[in-house]
Amino acid sequence: MTRIFDDPAEFADDQLAGFLDLYADRVRGVHGGVVTHRGDEPQVAVVVGGGSGHYPAFCGTVGPGLAHGAVVGNIFTSPSAAQAYSVGKAADQGRGVIFSFGNYAGDVMNFGIAAERLRAEGIDTRIVIVTDDVASAEEEQKRRGIAGDFTVFKAMGAAAARGLGIDEVERLGRAANAATRTLGVAFSGCTMPGEDEPLFTVPEGHLGLGLGIHGEPGIRDVEMLPARDLAALLVDEVCKNAPAGAPKRVGTILNGLGTTKYEELFLLWRHVAPRLREAGLEIVEPEVGELVTSLDMGGCSLTLMWLDDELDPLWRADAYTPAYRKAAAPLAPLREPTPDELAEAEAVVTAPEAGEAGRRLAGTVRTALAAVESTIREHEHELGRIDAVAGDGDHGRGMLKGVTAATARVRESGDRVGGGWLLQQAGQAWAERAGGTSGVLWGAALEAFGRHLGDTADAYPAGTVAAGVREFASTIQQLGGAQPGDKTLLDALLPFVDDLERRVGAGEELAPAWAGAAEVATEQAGRTADLRPKIGRARPLAERSVGTPDAGATSMGLVVTAVGAVLESEPC
Amino acid sequence: MTRIFDDPAEFADDQLAGFLDLYADRVRGVHGGVVTHRGDEPQVAVVVGGGSGHYPAFCGTVGPGLAHGAVVGNIFTSPSAAQAYSVGKAADQGRGVIFSFGNYAGDVMNFGIAAERLRAEGIDTRIVIVTDDVASAEEEQKRRGIAGDFTVFKAMGAAAARGLGIDEVERLGRAANAATRTLGVAFSGCTMPGEDEPLFTVPEGHLGLGLGIHGEPGIRDVEMLPARDLAALLVDEVCKNAPAGAPKRVGTILNGLGTTKYEELFLLWRHVAPRLREAGLEIVEPEVGELVTSLDMGGCSLTLMWLDDELDPLWRADAYTPAYRKAAAPLAPLREPTPDELAEAEAVVTAPEAGEAGRRLAGTVRTALAAVESTIREHEHELGRIDAVAGDGDHGRGMLKGVTAATARVRESGDRVGGGWLLQQAGQAWAERAGGTSGVLWGAALEAFGRHLGDTADAYPAGTVAAGVREFASTIQQLGGAQPGDKTLLDALLPFVDDLERRVGAGEELAPAWAGAAEVATEQAGRTADLRPKIGRARPLAERSVGTPDAGATSMGLVVTAVGAVLESEPC
Repeated sequence: MTRIFDDPAEFADDQLAGFLDLYADRVRGVHGGVVTHRGDEPQVAVVVGGGSGHYPAFCGTVGPGLAHGAVVGNIFTSPSAAQAYSVGKAADQGRGVIFSFGNYAGDVMNFGIAAERLRAEGIDTRIVIVTDDVASAEEEQKRRGIAGDFTVFKAMGAAAARGLGIDEVERLGRAANAATRTLGVAFSGCTMPGEDEPLFTVPEGHLGLGLGIHGEPGIRDVEMLPARDLAALLVDEVCKNAPAGAPKRVGTILNGLGTTKYEELFLLWRHVAPRLREAGLEIVEPEVGELVTSLDMGGCSLTLMWLDDELDPLWRADAYTPAYRKAAAPLAPLREPTPDELAEAEAVVTAPEAGEAGRRLAGTVRTALAAVESTIREHEHELGRIDAVAGDGDHGRGMLKGVTAATARVRESGDRVGGGWLLQQAGQAWAERAGGTSGVLWGAALEAFGRHLGDTADAYPAGTVAAGVREFASTIQQLGGAQPGDKTLLDALLPFVDDLERRVGAGEELAPAWAGAAEVATEQAGRTADLRPKIGRARPLAERSVGTPDAGATSMGLVVTAVGAVLESEPC
Repeated sequence: MTRIFDDPAEFADDQLAGFLDLYADRVRGVHGGVVTHRGDEPQVAVVVGGGSGHYPAFCGTVGPGLAHGAVVGNIFTSPSAAQAYSVGKAADQGRGVIFSFGNYAGDVMNFGIAAERLRAEGIDTRIVIVTDDVASAEEEQKRRGIAGDFTVFKAMGAAAARGLGIDEVERLGRAANAATRTLGVAFSGCTMPGEDEPLFTVPEGHLGLGLGIHGEPGIRDVEMLPARDLAALLVDEVCKNAPAGAPKRVGTILNGLGTTKYEELFLLWRHVAPRLREAGLEIVEPEVGELVTSLDMGGCSLTLMWLDDELDPLWRADAYTPAYRKAAAPLAPLREPTPDELAEAEAVVTAPEAGEAGRRLAGTVRTALAAVESTIREHEHELGRIDAVAGDGDHGRGMLKGVTAATARVRESGDRVGGGWLLQQAGQAWAERAGGTSGVLWGAALEAFGRHLGDTADAYPAGTVAAGVREFASTIQQLGGAQPGDKTLLDALLPFVDDLERRVGAGEELAPAWAGAAEVATEQAGRTADLRPKIGRARPLAERSVGTPDAGATSMGLVVTAVGAVLESEPC
C-alpha cells in the first residue's frame, strides 16, 4: 500500500521533485521529465518514458550509458505529447532523438504526436516500441512492453554512447526488442496513492500468470507454486517463446514488481539459473532486482534477451544512472582460493584420543544428553506454551533443536574421544542449530563446562564436576548479562550450583548431591512465576508474564533433573 | 508477504545459495556467509553480519570499498559463533578482522565468542557495535543498530581500502557510530516465509514511531501523517539527538524498510532535504533507497552521520558491491544549460494576431467550449457510471479535466487571436491535462480541427467547417486505430460527420445542419449498447459491456449537441 504522499493527485509531480533534488548533480528537470547532461561528444538522444509508478523505470535509468532523458507521466498514465516533445527537445544533442517506451495505446499516440512535432522542427526523431510480454498477445507487435523495456533501452543507450548514428542506434534497438521476451507473474495487486482498495487483486493462494504491470488481464490464475516450480514455469514459458534461430547466450533479468523482496528473488534465482543452463543457455551478466516495478504489486518477471555478437557487448557495457550502475573496472577477477585457504576452510577438527577416565566420562555425557533430549522432547509444547505468555513461544522448539543437534554431533564422534571434548562439540552444535539467545547461552556454557573438565584427568571427582558446573553458570551470566531475579534460566541454575557446591563441599557423593540440587532448581523454577522480568522484554509483555514461570528456568530444572537420574545409574 | 520459498525453514540458506550463484564473480561462499576476494594489497578485514531478512544488509554490501565479508544468520536470528568465526577466518588478509553488527544480544554474544576464538589463533580481532537507533534507549550504548549499520560499515570499509591499520580502522568505525543517529517509522508489519500472519502489526491508519526492524516496541503509535509532517517529525527528532558539538555536514540515508517504494521515498525526500537545510545542515551525497530492510515491512528511517574532516571523505569514497555502487569518475559535473537552451525550454508560443473573421470565430470557440464544459460537468457522474461497466470508470472525470483545461487556456489568451489558433491551444491543453487515451484523441483532434480552420480566412463557410470536422474525425481514426462498430466514440462521431457533410452539401446552413447531425450522433451513441467492443478490452469486460452504451460515444453526442445550440445563436 502506498503510504507516503501529500495530495494523492500530485503524487507523480511530487516524487519527481524529490528525485530532482536528490540527483541534482546528475540530471536536470525540464517540463515533463528529466534529461542528463551532454558530454563532450554529442550523442543520439535515447528518450524513454511512460507513466509513473514503475521506478526505476523511467527516470532512474537516465545517465551515462543508458537513457538521455525520461518523460514522466502521471501514475500508470501516459505522459502527454507536450511532455514528450519538451523532454525530446531538451535531450536532443543535434544527432536526433529516439523515443522508446512500452507498447500501450496512450504512449504510442502521445510519443507519436511529439515525434511529429520534433520532426516538423527539423529534429530527426525515431520511435522504438518495446513488445516483450509474451503473455499479452500472440502476435509479437501487439504485445505489451514490461521489463524488456530495460534491455532495449540499455542496448540503445550503449550504442549511442559509442557514438553510433541514429540509423544504427534505432536498428540495434529494434534488434534488441526482437531478441527480448518476458513473462511475469503477480501475487498481489497494487494500491494507488490515496486509495484504500487495491487497483486489482489476485485470488488468495494463487498467482496471476502473465498479469500486466497495470493489472491488465493475464493468461490465467494458477495455484501458488513453490519456488522451484515457479522458476520452471517462468524459464520454460519464456524459452518456448524464443525468437527463431536464437543464439545460446542470454542477458537475463529476474525483476521484482514491488513488494517481492531481493531475498525472495535470490531464492528464485537459485532455481532459475540451473534451469536456464540445463536448457543449454549461457547466462550473461544477469540482473536480479527491481528494474520495472508496479508500485507495491507483489510478483516478478523473467526477461531473456538472446545475445548475438552485436547485442552482447551492448548488454555488458558500463552504465551509471541513479538506479543502475555497472562498471567493468572495479571488478578484478575473483582469485581462486589457495590450497592453504581451502584446507583451512574445510579443516575438520580432529578428535583427540582420550584416556580411560575421559572415555568413561564420554559415556556418561552420551547417556545424559540422550536423556535430556528425551525429556525436552516430552515437554516441548509445554515449554512453548509457557514461553508464549511473555515471549515468542519458541523456547521448547529452540531447546529441542539444540539438544538434538548436540546428540547428533556426539553420535558422530568415535568412541576414543573424551567427555570433555564431547561436551565442547555438543555445545558448538547446540549453538549452531538452536539459534536465538538461549541457544548461544546453552552452547557456550556446555563448551565451557567441557573445557573445564578436559580429557586428560585420571578421574573426575565430584568437586571437579561441581566446579565445571560453576563454569557453566558463569559463562551464561557473563554472556547474557542477566542478574538473579531477572526471570531467566539463572533463577533455577544459580540455586542449583550453590546447592551442588554446598553438598559436595560437605562430602556428599556426586549423584545424590546432584539429585538434591536438582530438586532445589525445579522448585526455584516454579517460583519464577512470582517474578517480573527485568530484561529484554517490553513493558506490556512484562505485565502479562507475572504469574507465569519462566520457560528458561523451567527447562533448566528439567535438564538437571534428567542428568541427575543418569548419574545415579552411571557415575562418572 | 513473503511468497517465494521452498521449505520456509531453509529460506536463509536457499536465498544465500541464489545470491552466491548470481555474484559468483565477486564473492565467495564460505561456511556461514560470504567473503570478497583479496586484492594485491592486503587490507584489514571488515566483517559485518546479523540475521537474514535485511537485504542489502548484510551480504549485499560485500565488495571493494565496503565489507570484506558478511556472516549470514537465519531470518531475524543472529548467526552462530561458528559461522562468524568461519567467515572472519576466511576474510582475514593477515592484517586483522573487525566484526561490526547492530547491537542485539545474540549478535553481541556470538560475534564475541567468534572473536575470542580468532584471537586464540593469533588473529587480531576487534568489535565495533552499531547503536544508532535513537528510539530504542536513552543511553547511547544500549541503543539498537538499524540503518546506521551502513554508515559505520562504509566508514570502516573505506578506511580499510586506504590501507589503514586495524587500530585506525577500529577508531574510525567507533567515530562513525558515535556520529550516526537514526529514527525509523513503520506503517505495517512483516511476514516470515511460510507464515500466514504478520510477525507484528501497526494499528490501521497509524505509524509506529521508533518501531524496531524486528518489530521491537517503539516509542508510540502516531496517526498516519502527510509526507510533509512525516519528514518534519523524522528530521526534527534525529536532529534533537545530534551528538554534542556535531559539525554541519551530514551524510544522509532515507532508507526504505521493504514495501515502501522508491517513489514514496523520493516524495518524502522532497520535504526532508529542505528541512535539513533549514536546520543549517549541508547534505553530503545523500542515499535514498533500501540499505537495511526488514522483509516486507512498510516504513522508512532517516539516518544522519555528522561528518567531520575525517569521516567526510570516507562517506564520499567509492564502493562497488552487489547492492551499493558508487564511483566518482563517471560523474562529470552537470553542465549549466546554455542561454539558448533555456530560452528554448521556456519559449512561450506567441499568439499570432488574427483578422476580423478569425476573431469572430474565436468568440464562437470560446462560447462553444464553455457550453461543452457545462454539459460535461452536468453529466460527469453519469459518464463515469457508464464507463465503469467495461472500463475504469474515469471517462467523465477525464473529459471534465480536459475541457476545463481547454477553457482555462482559451480564457488566458488575449482577444486578438483567431479561433483556429484557439482551437489548437485548447487541444494541447486538453491532451496535457486529461491524460488517458480519450484525452490524447480529443486533444489531437481539436488541434487538427483548428489547424484546418486557420486564422487567415476572410470567412468560414459551412463547407470549411464541415471539412474541419472531417479532419477532426480522421485524426481520431488514425491515432486510435479503431473501426466503426468497435464501440468507441467513432460510432457517434462518424455518423455525425457523414450527416453534417450531406446536409451542408445539400445547401443547408451550418447551424441547422449541425443540429440535425447532432441528433443522429446522439441516437447512434445510444445504439452502441448493442455493440460488442473489439479493441483494448479483455474478454470478460467485453462480455459485461454488451447492453451498455459506450461512454466515449455518449460524451461525443453530448458535445456536438451543446455546440449545435451555440451555433444557433452565434453563427460563425
